[in-house]
Amino acid sequence: MNGLVTQPRLITLEGGEGAGKSTVLNALRDALMATGAEVVCTREPGGTPLAERIRELLLDPSHEPASAETELLLMFAARAQHVRETLLPALQRNAWVLSDRFTGSSFAYQGGGRGLDPALIAELERRFVVVRPGLTLLLDLGVQQGRERTRGRDLVPDRIERERDEFFERVRAAYLARAGAEPERMRVIDASASAEDVALRATTLLQHYIEHGL
Amino acid sequence: MNGLVTQPRLITLEGGEGAGKSTVLNALRDALMATGAEVVCTREPGGTPLAERIRELLLDPSHEPASAETELLLMFAARAQHVRETLLPALQRNAWVLSDRFTGSSFAYQGGGRGLDPALIAELERRFVVVRPGLTLLLDLGVQQGRERTRGRDLVPDRIERERDEFFERVRAAYLARAGAEPERMRVIDASASAEDVALRATTLLQHYIEHGL
Repeated sequence: MNGLVTQPRLITLEGGEGAGKSTVLNALRDALMATGAEVVCTREPGGTPLAERIRELLLDPSHEPASAETELLLMFAARAQHVRETLLPALQRNAWVLSDRFTGSSFAYQGGGRGLDPALIAELERRFVVVRPGLTLLLDLGVQQGRERTRGRDLVPDRIERERDEFFERVRAAYLARAGAEPERMRVIDASASAEDVALRATTLLQHYIEHGL
Repeated sequence: MNGLVTQPRLITLEGGEGAGKSTVLNALRDALMATGAEVVCTREPGGTPLAERIRELLLDPSHEPASAETELLLMFAARAQHVRETLLPALQRNAWVLSDRFTGSSFAYQGGGRGLDPALIAELERRFVVVRPGLTLLLDLGVQQGRERTRGRDLVPDRIERERDEFFERVRAAYLARAGAEPERMRVIDASASAEDVALRATTLLQHYIEHGL
């Protein structure tokens, strides 16, 4: 398993907290279900019982912080499991898969945010992930606006949410750089608009993707 | 952190269950403490609170099995944390470190046992582990004898202990092959002898290593 295969029916959502990924995921799911197709909705880190337990470890503030390298390896451990247990079986039976976050998050958070070498992340992707989404929608939102939208959402912020604004600025910049470098499979949506407008823009892009490709 | 640095004061024990690693670890610790040195005893997977929680995930039979790739990445996530939180700080203050298992276990279990490419494991070692032990003692024991010694030790066997004999034969073969390929830092001890004889052989090797190197 050393090469990456683009899977047209794998669609992933990327972006910071508060960008409206959940609303968009629901809208895309409804649009795909209306075609009569099977749709699997999933998320990262997570998507299998073991991967969800890895997610708990990643977000739990009760033990010592993971080093940047540990965090990266845990993310890819969860992803390797998610791909083999959930994504590949669904794609093989011709279902659509909608994932809230995927490898793009590692380039943004562990690459841009934590400063790890993108070439190292690309190597892990090539060796362990096997698949690449046909379409990735990046919901782009200013860091301050994202903070305002998520304020009060959780009583106890998890490890990632506790990071400072500079961290999230680096994450956003890495996301945008990657979208610029991969126009053949990534689309940026301005997520500062209303949730309805963002969802409409996403379903319009999806419709075009289904009918004509990107 | 792209190169491996050999650490003369890092000593690791490898071998299957029942080979007597704990007894040998205690004997080596006592011998080193008798020189007045600080000695840190640790184990893998584990050695930090987070890494011990990764260990629980790896051994817990209650969720779906980890794919071979997931298992490998979890092992290296725990190792990356262990190296940065425990090993490097100890080595920097000139302590000796004795670890029950280290990277050698990944070559044996995930490489030999699960059939993953040793070149891939070596790549993870190079990118994430940073350090290589100055001395590794491999306690070599026949699979049947190991089974007999550990019978009844645990009420509920963990995931690894549930593997079949062929798995452990491949693990043993991979261990021996690696010891043969790295005579400058690995020594094989016949662990079929009594625990006392094995511990004596190990402390004799240690004494020689301290005084003359391998």
